[in-house]
Amino acid sequence: MSEAVEKLTKKSEDPSKWYLQLVRMAKLADYGPVRGTFAIRPYGYAIWELIQADLDARFKATGHHNAYFPLLIPESYLKKEAEIVEAFDPELAWVTVGGHEELEERLAVRPTSESIICEFYSNWVQSYRDLPVLINQWCNVMRWEKVTRPFLRTAEFLWQEGHTVHAMAEESHEEALKMQGVYRDCFYEALAVPVLTGVKSASERFPGALETFTCEGLMGDGRALQAATSHDLGQNFSRAFDITFLDEAQNRVYAHQTSWGFSTRVIGGLILVHGDDRGLKLPPKIAPTEAVIVPIWRGQSKGEVRREAEALYSELKDSGLRMEVDLDEEHSPGWKFNEHELRGVPVRVELGPRDIEKGQAVLVRRDTREKEFVERKGMAQRLHQLLAEIQEHMLAQAMQFRDANTRHAGTYKEFKEIIEEKRGFVVAPWDGTGEAETRIKEETKATIRLLPFDRQEGKDLVSGKPGKTAIFARAY
Amino acid sequence: MSEAVEKLTKKSEDPSKWYLQLVRMAKLADYGPVRGTFAIRPYGYAIWELIQADLDARFKATGHHNAYFPLLIPESYLKKEAEIVEAFDPELAWVTVGGHEELEERLAVRPTSESIICEFYSNWVQSYRDLPVLINQWCNVMRWEKVTRPFLRTAEFLWQEGHTVHAMAEESHEEALKMQGVYRDCFYEALAVPVLTGVKSASERFPGALETFTCEGLMGDGRALQAATSHDLGQNFSRAFDITFLDEAQNRVYAHQTSWGFSTRVIGGLILVHGDDRGLKLPPKIAPTEAVIVPIWRGQSKGEVRREAEALYSELKDSGLRMEVDLDEEHSPGWKFNEHELRGVPVRVELGPRDIEKGQAVLVRRDTREKEFVERKGMAQRLHQLLAEIQEHMLAQAMQFRDANTRHAGTYKEFKEIIEEKRGFVVAPWDGTGEAETRIKEETKATIRLLPFDRQEGKDLVSGKPGKTAIFARAY
Repeated sequence: MSEAVEKLTKKSEDPSKWYLQLVRMAKLADYGPVRGTFAIRPYGYAIWELIQADLDARFKATGHHNAYFPLLIPESYLKKEAEIVEAFDPELAWVTVGGHEELEERLAVRPTSESIICEFYSNWVQSYRDLPVLINQWCNVMRWEKVTRPFLRTAEFLWQEGHTVHAMAEESHEEALKMQGVYRDCFYEALAVPVLTGVKSASERFPGALETFTCEGLMGDGRALQAATSHDLGQNFSRAFDITFLDEAQNRVYAHQTSWGFSTRVIGGLILVHGDDRGLKLPPKIAPTEAVIVPIWRGQSKGEVRREAEALYSELKDSGLRMEVDLDEEHSPGWKFNEHELRGVPVRVELGPRDIEKGQAVLVRRDTREKEFVERKGMAQRLHQLLAEIQEHMLAQAMQFRDANTRHAGTYKEFKEIIEEKRGFVVAPWDGTGEAETRIKEETKATIRLLPFDRQEGKDLVSGKPGKTAIFARAY
Repeated sequence: MSEAVEKLTKKSEDPSKWYLQLVRMAKLADYGPVRGTFAIRPYGYAIWELIQADLDARFKATGHHNAYFPLLIPESYLKKEAEIVEAFDPELAWVTVGGHEELEERLAVRPTSESIICEFYSNWVQSYRDLPVLINQWCNVMRWEKVTRPFLRTAEFLWQEGHTVHAMAEESHEEALKMQGVYRDCFYEALAVPVLTGVKSASERFPGALETFTCEGLMGDGRALQAATSHDLGQNFSRAFDITFLDEAQNRVYAHQTSWGFSTRVIGGLILVHGDDRGLKLPPKIAPTEAVIVPIWRGQSKGEVRREAEALYSELKDSGLRMEVDLDEEHSPGWKFNEHELRGVPVRVELGPRDIEKGQAVLVRRDTREKEFVERKGMAQRLHQLLAEIQEHMLAQAMQFRDANTRHAGTYKEFKEIIEEKRGFVVAPWDGTGEAETRIKEETKATIRLLPFDRQEGKDLVSGKPGKTAIFARAY
């Protein structure tokens, strides 16, 4: 064996070190030359492509179309919406020179595209017949962050941003809610990440939004991750960018808008939710390789085992599975087992001379590490079924973890103990004031992650005033 | 009718005006605020998505994987390869400020990514076992062009760039050729654009390449368009960026590389090759809508025709076709016919009360405008077949046009006459010198588009020296 297997730090011992090491060892991403920039390597990108395909199909099924808008936004455009400037100004990268010439106006590399898309929309939208506009864009964006970590917080990242325009206030509200639902379905069904959904408090809203709907995931270390948000922008942007239309009664009125986004940050969430001491654990639906065949050969059996492994590979691939067969001759089967567990491949198929004799193979699950002997004949069918079981089990496990780590706090003392010692989500009444929210944040580093759709009444733990439940956590 | 139909300029009268007007009227793209930037509107982007899907499948079938590399390239990286700097320096956009701070080193918005990808590769490639590296990236790039035109030449555009690393010189040569073949297949089979393939002369090579392979299309106005290129970079970049590996004999040697690209420029090519006085004409394989149903109702028949049109729509859609049904009540059928012809929808399905009575519908081809009456029963099958016929016929037509506009020149006088009066491709011997090439370019504005793979001997028209055939044209 030419390479020593680097030992992965235990997740429980040092989650932060574990995360960075895993990203590198599984070849998901690599550091770029500019601070906070990364290359997403083929294995990481293949995960993103599967997530994209899943989400894109959901967008199209709900009537959205993709488009592409310019990367560079003139400074004057950004300044049209006051809250956008204030929020993003500290994080902007500016192009000041083009083709050897100093530009008359600085151009920001888009941190998000409301400001430029609204300019187009003010031309495209003229009549109620032009509505609704249901457009999405897959692209790169840039935010000059001070502290970065691959996938979770990077200067440049990939995402999609939906931008819609509607005639009525109820429609933009409904659209923002609908897209939260689309995200939620993708998290549950594809990523096996049981996010909580709700509304953001005013301080955590998107700049310029009337309301922000959020999906919040609970990571393995008990911290929350804001995984995707959708915003009802109301008429704030249409007023700033003059997006008006003639309604059926021939009155010129301002349009109502939404925007919503989901980024490569989610890959960080996947790692943190499902990963363990052995490495990644990928839900089958977004695993670039659903199952890997590892032939186990010794001396003279090699030729036959190799042939059988290749035949089995073709058979399983033809049944519609994303398969790999590891025919590498440098490494031992044990080395390969570790490697594919590190990469999070949901199922390993072991095939040795004895298995071939018996007309079987061994299936080993990544999630539970359970083994089963399966007859070669029904292999494809069993593997499809097993992958569905793994998908379901991973969601169930994550839900169990989430529920076990969602606690009600009856007093502020209890609240602080939970946040300090156990972390996770804490459910507690909040009086709706910025004062209570800020005090809790300053004293515990916990923020309001969301206000549930169904809120219970109770007394605010800090102020003692009447309030309604909010869900708190320390967040990434 | 609330809107007047804007009249499209005739292609033959003013091809340039026709092009710009068509891009706007068919809602393919719209001008951005920064010179040379554009939004690709949903209809234009849907074409791009279908092209992408076709090409991406071909890349994956030939063993390539997608990845993503940073947008911003430090100036010092670009300077490592002298020819790259020289070629792209005048066209770069520079980020000089990030997060309120002046940057120590300027960062270029990528014009192409060799310089940054090679830095990653110099880490990723260590042993012959790491080879080949077969990576592709779909992304945006920026070139600060002086004169721009939507799709054909824009400051920002979308493209894919493949970047591969190989152990041996023959392998990078073969890879570059193979990818030219992949592009060629996509042009012929999906876009119905019969490109000519060959090798670039030294002056038209990609900066730093040993050899550039090209696909050149002939546009409707007789000018050529460089549609996609692939480059054998040899060891030029591996030496500049120190990409070495230990070969099987344990010697540290420089790797061999390729790069290859295909961009949204091709959408401009599609418009110019297939468009006519009535508007766009899309090959079915990349048409966002393969067929549109236009119901023809009068007074009391409306309800029934509408129901039947919707039923037919569902039926055809379920058979796997990309369908639209135009139920708009504002416009007349005639207005709709024009509109969908302008948008280049390959087939129109007309359905009126008489058709319903007879259990039929009328299929009208966009390419030949031929009508046929088809029984409702076998409609889906006939439509699938008709679309295949249209795809084939559009390629045949474009080949006929290309061949009719590919002429051999026996003298320089004849060469000049063809270029001036007829344009198209001109086949003539070239002595291989820069002098002859430059003189022809200066005197006729024609450039060597490619050197065919199978070249005939003959005397150079300018120098009279022995030479081999080259293919010349005025180019976009």
